[in-house]
Amino acid sequence: MTIAAIEAVPFRLRPKHTIRFANGAVGETVNVLIRIRTDDGLVGVGEASPRSMTYGDSWPGVVHTVRELVAPRWLGQDEWRIEALHDQLRELRGSHTARAALDIALHDLAAQRAGVPVATLLGGFADRVRVSHLLSLGEPEAMAEEAGTLARTMGIRAFKVKTGLSPGSDVERVVAVSEAVGEGGLVYIDANHGWRAHEALQVMRALEKRGVRPAWLEEPNPADDVVGRRWLAERIDVPVVGDESTVDLVTAATQLRGGLCHWVALKAPRNGFRVARQIVGFARGAGAEVVVGSQIEGALGALANLHLAAAWPETSRMPAEVTSGHAFVTDLIDPLPVVDGWMQLPDAPGLGVSIDDARLDELRVQ
Amino acid sequence: MTIAAIEAVPFRLRPKHTIRFANGAVGETVNVLIRIRTDDGLVGVGEASPRSMTYGDSWPGVVHTVRELVAPRWLGQDEWRIEALHDQLRELRGSHTARAALDIALHDLAAQRAGVPVATLLGGFADRVRVSHLLSLGEPEAMAEEAGTLARTMGIRAFKVKTGLSPGSDVERVVAVSEAVGEGGLVYIDANHGWRAHEALQVMRALEKRGVRPAWLEEPNPADDVVGRRWLAERIDVPVVGDESTVDLVTAATQLRGGLCHWVALKAPRNGFRVARQIVGFARGAGAEVVVGSQIEGALGALANLHLAAAWPETSRMPAEVTSGHAFVTDLIDPLPVVDGWMQLPDAPGLGVSIDDARLDELRVQ
Repeated sequence: MTIAAIEAVPFRLRPKHTIRFANGAVGETVNVLIRIRTDDGLVGVGEASPRSMTYGDSWPGVVHTVRELVAPRWLGQDEWRIEALHDQLRELRGSHTARAALDIALHDLAAQRAGVPVATLLGGFADRVRVSHLLSLGEPEAMAEEAGTLARTMGIRAFKVKTGLSPGSDVERVVAVSEAVGEGGLVYIDANHGWRAHEALQVMRALEKRGVRPAWLEEPNPADDVVGRRWLAERIDVPVVGDESTVDLVTAATQLRGGLCHWVALKAPRNGFRVARQIVGFARGAGAEVVVGSQIEGALGALANLHLAAAWPETSRMPAEVTSGHAFVTDLIDPLPVVDGWMQLPDAPGLGVSIDDARLDELRVQ
Repeated sequence: MTIAAIEAVPFRLRPKHTIRFANGAVGETVNVLIRIRTDDGLVGVGEASPRSMTYGDSWPGVVHTVRELVAPRWLGQDEWRIEALHDQLRELRGSHTARAALDIALHDLAAQRAGVPVATLLGGFADRVRVSHLLSLGEPEAMAEEAGTLARTMGIRAFKVKTGLSPGSDVERVVAVSEAVGEGGLVYIDANHGWRAHEALQVMRALEKRGVRPAWLEEPNPADDVVGRRWLAERIDVPVVGDESTVDLVTAATQLRGGLCHWVALKAPRNGFRVARQIVGFARGAGAEVVVGSQIEGALGALANLHLAAAWPETSRMPAEVTSGHAFVTDLIDPLPVVDGWMQLPDAPGLGVSIDDARLDELRVQ
């Protein structure tokens, strides 16, 4: 079968509350639904969630790229020749979220064709995923309260604490959340480059004195400070994890080889499944763990992340950030429920979702 | 669907001529057909070609491993949960060829279920593969003659020259084959650890003086000679390729990171598709090329290698060794033809082959 049409439809997401972090915020936002239709009527979908503060991309840019650069190359071609299709985009730089959403839509098609969930097509390691939730940067008490509420209502015991505002208050954030989560919980930190290297060390030493040991530390300081990042990675006792400094295979490999981080984060909305798998190959060869993170994508992007986390042993080892769909008042699809801290994969072929046109029309940006 | 039966059937291959190389030879040999049957009657196949001189394994060992260690764990499970199935073998060391054949059989099943060739399930980059042929270690004139014959009859223009006997005669081998192949051909060397590091350098310098530049050099000297291997890799002008020193992801990653080789060889009969893909991820992240090599498997193993070579851009860049099926008088299936130096992928779902029981019975080892 062949690709008959590729759509890129911008749509508006309204969050319950603005989600804040050291290098930006996600409030009302426009993401892009990508739909690939085959000549026999199958539809594959993916959600692009552009992030100017991370990739420098934008929703109009994604729409243009998909309509003007990708569609003319891909139309009429076999939709299952995923490597051949990507290879035709090799002149295209960056464009992480557009490329990822296209890759997700292609895998949705292939898995529907195969009659299995995307996670099974990729490897089928697990059928449910331990959930981690990202706590918006705020007052320590508010962050602790949100963690406590989610522990009670959804059984979530793993939390990302957004930090990077000031070392003193950040210590209190991590301590407050750790106390709220208690024994058996898992707390990790994401500073989004908000500290200098020596400040990061100061935070980690202070946490040690307070008896709090985060599971890992993402992006403590600017990764461009190569000397400072490596100095820090050599000194602290928890793994340093690359995220916005390790956006694709080559940057992940370079940071890992250079000793700038110990582990790397993967995200379906940034990497798609194909690049994510390449990074897993590299990380495994380098003896590094991977963690599945969120960039506050909508429920469709989070669903792709769920399939990614379930696919392989490497992505299933740590709790995965798959709850971002719960952050929005309006969205294309409903987020999957979290039960006792786990999220179950849908049984249906592909991603296991279809888009309601009426709902899309309500959210569509003209 | 679930796995209903796993068979391991040893069968005898008779070569037209014994194939020789620096660290051994393949004459009459016993390989193992692995067949996985599902509860709804699908059959997936893979061929294990054990190599005592490379992996220390044997056909009775493969049979035992599959029947006694793998089958009890896998029976009754979903055959498409490939990562989950492999994960249950994580306590099993080595066993490269058994594991690879099982992985090939699982992918054959999944691709049949999906209704696409295995190469498409993996990525679908190409539908044909440029062929390279392995020249058995012999007199320079005989090797050149074989190359010339295959160039005329099959259009093959890429050859692996087996060397490692003595530096002086090995130079003559490479020169003779290069002359027979002529302009536009591609010749590379495999010494299978037959030289010391200084001898390898001596060969490469002598070839330079004769105006012959091989495309790459596999396994020049013992890889355990870490200092010598790195010394050589820094000095010569062609890429050093790891093969029997880079048998899985961790050894490939270690040799690449340590500067002991520049590229690595992949083989479906050794790595299966899952590990091969992980190695491709690592190699790509490290900026290294991969080459698809043969371990003189039968036509079924060579067919798996063909699917591997076609799957991704990385495996399609160099000609692939997929002709070993032509080396045998008796075999389970007929080898695919080579036309104008290319081998075309079968259209059929899965590996695109079925095993004839009468033929298997003739070759079966009791």
